[in-house]
Amino acid sequence: MNDRSHSPGSVRPGGRTARTREAVLSAALDELAEKGYAALSVEGVAQRSGVHPATIRRRWRTVEGIMCDALTQDSGRAIVIPDTGSLRQDLRQIAQSIGGYYMVERNKAFLGGIVSAAGRDSFAEDALRDTLSVRLRLASEIVHQAIKRGELPPDTDAEEVIAYMAAPLYYRLLVSRRPLDDRLPLVCADAAYHAARAGVFSLPGESAGAASETDEPA
Amino acid sequence: MNDRSHSPGSVRPGGRTARTREAVLSAALDELAEKGYAALSVEGVAQRSGVHPATIRRRWRTVEGIMCDALTQDSGRAIVIPDTGSLRQDLRQIAQSIGGYYMVERNKAFLGGIVSAAGRDSFAEDALRDTLSVRLRLASEIVHQAIKRGELPPDTDAEEVIAYMAAPLYYRLLVSRRPLDDRLPLVCADAAYHAARAGVFSLPGESAGAASETDEPA
Repeated sequence: MNDRSHSPGSVRPGGRTARTREAVLSAALDELAEKGYAALSVEGVAQRSGVHPATIRRRWRTVEGIMCDALTQDSGRAIVIPDTGSLRQDLRQIAQSIGGYYMVERNKAFLGGIVSAAGRDSFAEDALRDTLSVRLRLASEIVHQAIKRGELPPDTDAEEVIAYMAAPLYYRLLVSRRPLDDRLPLVCADAAYHAARAGVFSLPGESAGAASETDEPA
Repeated sequence: MNDRSHSPGSVRPGGRTARTREAVLSAALDELAEKGYAALSVEGVAQRSGVHPATIRRRWRTVEGIMCDALTQDSGRAIVIPDTGSLRQDLRQIAQSIGGYYMVERNKAFLGGIVSAAGRDSFAEDALRDTLSVRLRLASEIVHQAIKRGELPPDTDAEEVIAYMAAPLYYRLLVSRRPLDDRLPLVCADAAYHAARAGVFSLPGESAGAASETDEPA
């Protein structure tokens, strides 16, 4: 994982190194939320965190390096994988937790910062890609359970179901740039649910899926 | 539309003003594709376009201003609205045209530049939001036709169907950051199709839609 090269792999948890890291990452997220990515600077983070700029440059090199490490830290955030016994309800719970997370202005600003960093720095792009793929893999457990229960075709691409459920939330945040609301996660979950039930996410070659020309009623 | 403040509203088409604009916007997109947004500068655009930096600053002020104007120009790009008589085929054609557009590296770089600019400049953010809403409105004609044909519930939110169809393409480009492929647009179209047929995009309050707790088989 390239983002390692940006983040200290061997901090003693609770030690001074860990406290410095916490101070720097937290200051960076505050700066980002207050001033935006364009104004994010090592100097600003140093001033807010009380950590010397040279220390920050030595360990994180650039603001993109700080973003990578913040993402690594964030990706350690525990994800609760629901198990309600219903795929639709499981999807709704995950969509609601993603939506709730990004309704917090600071988290929304963090996403904007990460995406900007990914557009400017290949380490940040790799860190984003790696983090997302880990999240998708974890969350896709609800789809595997649904397949076991017979709710979905056995050849369903589990991670694709989760990606399609999450995509409209990120589209709203990054592209159409309108505020999230409480309804969106439910619509996201239900859309992914019905598409999955219809076999749209069947792995290519193994069944009709998206290649099918039949317009079976939904 | 705030992006007007960044873009010349009254250029004489074909005149010197128009030629200068064309040279500057085209140079900016080339710079973006070659060097990325982080390296995009008024000086670089001036050098490549042969237009004096002072002229560029006077008319566009910043690289974000140039991005806004490029978006305005791009949004004038004719959109072909299919009318195959089948919603599913219409959705596939639009998804394929979006996918095909972003498979071109220069267009993909432009998207990255616009999203970065939107995160740094409120004019750019407004321009992106306005452009997207115009596109959604235009493309949603295929959904209105499908409703008239009785393919979809009459209370379907037409623009939401298009947004959900497009979202996974932008998610792949901006968030999961993996390459597009020929299959993705078909899956996008079919997912939106089946979700719409299931009534997921019914306008809130008018029917069950996402609020429904029934797990009707897809």
